[in-house]
Amino acid sequence: MLRIPGPTPCPEEVLQAMTRQMINHRGVEFEALLRSATARLKEFFQTKGDVLILTASGTGGMEAAIVNTLSPGDKVLAVINGVFGERFADIAEAYGAEVERLAFPWGQPGDPDAIRRALDSDRSIKAVLVTHNETSTGVTSDLAAISAVVKQYDKLLLVDAISSLGCIDLQTDAWQCDVVVTGSQKGWMIPPGLAFISVSPKAWDAHARARIPRFYWDFAQAKKFLERGQTPWTPAVSILYALAVALELMAGEGLANIFARHARIGQRTRDEIKALGLPLFAAEKYASNTITAVKAPDGLDAKRLLTILREEHDVILAGGQRGLAGKIFRIGHLGWVTESDIDAVIERLRTALPKAGFATA
Amino acid sequence: MLRIPGPTPCPEEVLQAMTRQMINHRGVEFEALLRSATARLKEFFQTKGDVLILTASGTGGMEAAIVNTLSPGDKVLAVINGVFGERFADIAEAYGAEVERLAFPWGQPGDPDAIRRALDSDRSIKAVLVTHNETSTGVTSDLAAISAVVKQYDKLLLVDAISSLGCIDLQTDAWQCDVVVTGSQKGWMIPPGLAFISVSPKAWDAHARARIPRFYWDFAQAKKFLERGQTPWTPAVSILYALAVALELMAGEGLANIFARHARIGQRTRDEIKALGLPLFAAEKYASNTITAVKAPDGLDAKRLLTILREEHDVILAGGQRGLAGKIFRIGHLGWVTESDIDAVIERLRTALPKAGFATA
Repeated sequence: MLRIPGPTPCPEEVLQAMTRQMINHRGVEFEALLRSATARLKEFFQTKGDVLILTASGTGGMEAAIVNTLSPGDKVLAVINGVFGERFADIAEAYGAEVERLAFPWGQPGDPDAIRRALDSDRSIKAVLVTHNETSTGVTSDLAAISAVVKQYDKLLLVDAISSLGCIDLQTDAWQCDVVVTGSQKGWMIPPGLAFISVSPKAWDAHARARIPRFYWDFAQAKKFLERGQTPWTPAVSILYALAVALELMAGEGLANIFARHARIGQRTRDEIKALGLPLFAAEKYASNTITAVKAPDGLDAKRLLTILREEHDVILAGGQRGLAGKIFRIGHLGWVTESDIDAVIERLRTALPKAGFATA
Repeated sequence: MLRIPGPTPCPEEVLQAMTRQMINHRGVEFEALLRSATARLKEFFQTKGDVLILTASGTGGMEAAIVNTLSPGDKVLAVINGVFGERFADIAEAYGAEVERLAFPWGQPGDPDAIRRALDSDRSIKAVLVTHNETSTGVTSDLAAISAVVKQYDKLLLVDAISSLGCIDLQTDAWQCDVVVTGSQKGWMIPPGLAFISVSPKAWDAHARARIPRFYWDFAQAKKFLERGQTPWTPAVSILYALAVALELMAGEGLANIFARHARIGQRTRDEIKALGLPLFAAEKYASNTITAVKAPDGLDAKRLLTILREEHDVILAGGQRGLAGKIFRIGHLGWVTESDIDAVIERLRTALPKAGFATA
């Protein structure tokens, strides 16, 4: 029972898809595969703009978002409420952007009003970096509200949606997100190895002027090759086989149903955790429907709990990262997940918690 | 029958390995997988130095070699005898290196004496970029001889061995190669999605001073995480499952036997092509044992030949790239390949050639 925020478990038919033999990535079969996956991804991104498939993990996709739209010295506002918000800021800084870090308490979302004040007080800011769903704390920020502010000031909006897209509503076009990044091993029910990225017309304008050096990540190369049904560099073909099958499953379920399932399961997870007597880490109004972070109350040894769950109950949960190590644990419920998966985790938690020092409610 | 220079066909047990369910990439099972694959890769790289596994295609690995060792403005000598030598130079240039392009006729290898003259006439050159096996022309340069020259001048040696490593002898340590890059979909008999890279102590020295910005590709992050049995960013787990099985197969065959098999099959391919009356494109002394490039003589429509082979004979070969489009075709014989695979291709070529305008010998 792998219940971390990714890699997420893959359905059997997805795993079987990867037993398909290699094909020519410059040939007609691959072209059909890439075109159909790209078209489907656009539906899940809720965009009529471009969606590109890169061979990389999600962090590679975040790097691509930065290097394709910014120039050294550009001012960037980074909305940070956890590890992945910091990572996005770190990447921008590594490439020479001047990053203003707008930090919020971990467990809280990014606050649109604070973003408004930051944009108002520094009109030279060019782009805003936002983590839609902060995996490290299990918090979903109100991206629609944040976008409304960012667009009022006509800034470029770069979104890390790695652990939300395909699970939680994200309306790329309606919310005017310029670049949205996700990773294959999250809501998509397939193994890691691919990043999917949307590029708006405004992002293409930025791309034309962006002077951070780039080669492997270049959106223009990806788009040029996509027009002939290819990728510029040899892609992770077997992950694309998996993607084709997963997208079929997702289309069968339907986007609205997928969102509803994640909302239902997120709520159930939180309810069950509270019923065990454990406190939630995230502000409940903003608690993520893909990841639940659970506070370790006094007496509970969170690291020992994870070890007991793994060794005695075959359940793999995630710990806290950085400053949250030992203070929280996290349950992933994104992608291929049902109510009974969560019930099984809760049942085993109930058994394991006392051994780790916590008397359940 | 997929006989292109990559992706190469995967043995059935490799494909089956990818049906294994996802695991925690921060957990103990993954640690064992990564440590064992890294140790085995070192044997195939013939190095006691570091070998890093990146989630990317080979081009990503080439980019990593550049951005981890160079600074903007560094002078670089790029040895170019085909498309991939040009790509290596293009990457260095994209990141601000001052690139001197030492070009050789396509079909010929890089010439150590010319490299010596170039290094002698410009002592400010910091690094030399070499393509061990030029996939676009089917030529293997004499890397040992080139290295002897490069090391006489004490330069950094960055090697694209994407289509040679694990097939053709490349002694990373003995030949003092500082960074050697390869891609999973070539000699390794597994799907694309991973790049493997060796880093010598001299390359680490260069890394400490290199100022090209980097984040995703950073060798130091990869090494730091490898020390705890992890990768910095979520890796392509299923390709690593495939790798573990393939490395087992390769270890069973033995490095010397693998080299001998590729040499035997390379020779057989060239002999059979000549017996058909077709000329080889590459200088025969330097003809690659992983890819054979065949010249299209007058009358032979190479593009039509590839279409006939694909549509009527289920054989996929590669065409020529850039200026060689329509002028050559290429047969890949690397990784999972036997004599009978080549015989089958030759047999079907014999049937298809007359239809494409060429009367076989």
